[in-house]
Amino acid sequence: MNESKIQNPKSKIFLGVDGGQSHTEAVIADENGNVLASGFGGASNHAEHPGGRERLRNAILNSVGEALKNANLPPVEKTIFTAAHFGMTGGADYKEEIINETVTAEYSIVGHDAPTALFGATAGEPGIVVVAGTGSVIYGENKRGETTKIGGLGYLFSDEGSGFWLALQTVRLAIKEQDGLIEPAGLEQLVLNFFRREKIRELTNDFYSAKITRDELASFAKATHAAAAAGNEVIRDQIKFGASVLVESVQSAVRRLCFQDNFPVAGVGGMFQGELMRKYFSELLQREIPEAVFIEPRFNPAIGAVLLAYKQAKIEISETLLANLRKSKVK
Amino acid sequence: MNESKIQNPKSKIFLGVDGGQSHTEAVIADENGNVLASGFGGASNHAEHPGGRERLRNAILNSVGEALKNANLPPVEKTIFTAAHFGMTGGADYKEEIINETVTAEYSIVGHDAPTALFGATAGEPGIVVVAGTGSVIYGENKRGETTKIGGLGYLFSDEGSGFWLALQTVRLAIKEQDGLIEPAGLEQLVLNFFRREKIRELTNDFYSAKITRDELASFAKATHAAAAAGNEVIRDQIKFGASVLVESVQSAVRRLCFQDNFPVAGVGGMFQGELMRKYFSELLQREIPEAVFIEPRFNPAIGAVLLAYKQAKIEISETLLANLRKSKVK
Repeated sequence: MNESKIQNPKSKIFLGVDGGQSHTEAVIADENGNVLASGFGGASNHAEHPGGRERLRNAILNSVGEALKNANLPPVEKTIFTAAHFGMTGGADYKEEIINETVTAEYSIVGHDAPTALFGATAGEPGIVVVAGTGSVIYGENKRGETTKIGGLGYLFSDEGSGFWLALQTVRLAIKEQDGLIEPAGLEQLVLNFFRREKIRELTNDFYSAKITRDELASFAKATHAAAAAGNEVIRDQIKFGASVLVESVQSAVRRLCFQDNFPVAGVGGMFQGELMRKYFSELLQREIPEAVFIEPRFNPAIGAVLLAYKQAKIEISETLLANLRKSKVK
Repeated sequence: MNESKIQNPKSKIFLGVDGGQSHTEAVIADENGNVLASGFGGASNHAEHPGGRERLRNAILNSVGEALKNANLPPVEKTIFTAAHFGMTGGADYKEEIINETVTAEYSIVGHDAPTALFGATAGEPGIVVVAGTGSVIYGENKRGETTKIGGLGYLFSDEGSGFWLALQTVRLAIKEQDGLIEPAGLEQLVLNFFRREKIRELTNDFYSAKITRDELASFAKATHAAAAAGNEVIRDQIKFGASVLVESVQSAVRRLCFQDNFPVAGVGGMFQGELMRKYFSELLQREIPEAVFIEPRFNPAIGAVLLAYKQAKIEISETLLANLRKSKVK
């Protein structure tokens, strides 16, 4: 604990951070579950890449700094949080040192983003969370505290059902359309319009030379989802396939954790904002795992991180506290 | 033409270069089709990446330099070739300037690697070549000089049937095996043994942080092919699928170029060294496109580049010249 820092004198303050592949969200709350403010920063991934340490430091500084400012609290270098929890995409590797240099807290834990998402979605209850944002991962925890993680090995190796995956599949299919390997389905035009390119080769070259980032490619998922909702069967089939892999992953988590009756399964992340993904996933879940209950996440992952910060500081997560969080939740 | 350079006084010399994703091959021949020597250098791809210009320059310098040395000719800075043809993966983009600074020739063309592969495989005759090395591309040219290219947009967007693709699919399936999404098939162990890692996550992390290159990942294809040959059904199915996409691509090229009877289709690159890929591809080609004739490539792509250099210099590609090339071909 850095004695030169001034802790907020009025009350204990808690920090929850959700560090994702496209942005980082920080939420500050008091000890009674009243959210004081939130703030946003850039992506938290690839701290090990060239320039990555600096990017991560900025993502943390910007999100936590904005939240402190919005809460009329002193800046980050003058603040000591009572407890802080950081749920980071890709886990703590390379990140813990940078984060601990940047933010001071009496108790601080840097962990994976998946447990944070589950803790938020179920408000700390056992269950399974399916995170499908830029990437995808399935995480479960049972009442004995046993945990399992399925997928989550990144854009190249295991990300079915994620935004990057759907965007990539659509571009791949657009190339097959252009090459005459599949029937025309308007995919090439969809890709060219979205990325404002004349040829798909310009897009792929710009991706390989890093002029288009993975996050920018993933942002195409929303437009592809909209095209599917408007009737594009080829993309619909892709979303169905993505949903089926996510449900198979839930099934594997259920077996491993011996879940039986009425356990919650929540969908978190941008892909579940899409009507079709929600529909296909929930229908398939109902059919394949009828003992699962598909729930709306109670809180987002950043609030999940706040709840984990409370847990660290041994603050009881009472219904009153949860009601306060719900009431004051920053949209 | 740089007058300070000394052209080899005895005879005209021709240079063919095949610049691939894993290595670069240079072949030097005289005007009668006698191969004087060959030489090898590193990969020719991604000249646009940080450090890429220097890597490409070295790949060219090393391969051409070694060939000149083996042929007892003066070093590259003192040599003027009569004609040189460079068939480069990814095409001429970013590469032409670097190559023309490095090698001097009276006539010099920097083009794609696919036409070079076709020109070598058919000794300049119309036909279709399927290149399946680290990446994959299908290229055809008919007797009217019309050309078409299918695929070839790199490891992320279109490379079914390539070495990188097979290696990646096997790692993806190994992750599904580890995650309990498919029946155990020995894939996880195959991956861990080959890459000498304890966990697949170590491999994926090392790939994302560029400690393992794409070429190193692609080199796993040979071991996966061997496992399939030894009976692994899951990998066999992948190779079959890869072969089917390659045959569909040939079909599209046939339609576009209006090929009809007895036209040659050649398979070039490391994947066609694999017994199973050759078998599945040739069987499927025979069934789906019976009017195609699956041929052994007459010459490799580097010799194809020499033939294109002859063509530029308006040297007739006679049967005597081809017989000399065959006789003296450096293994």
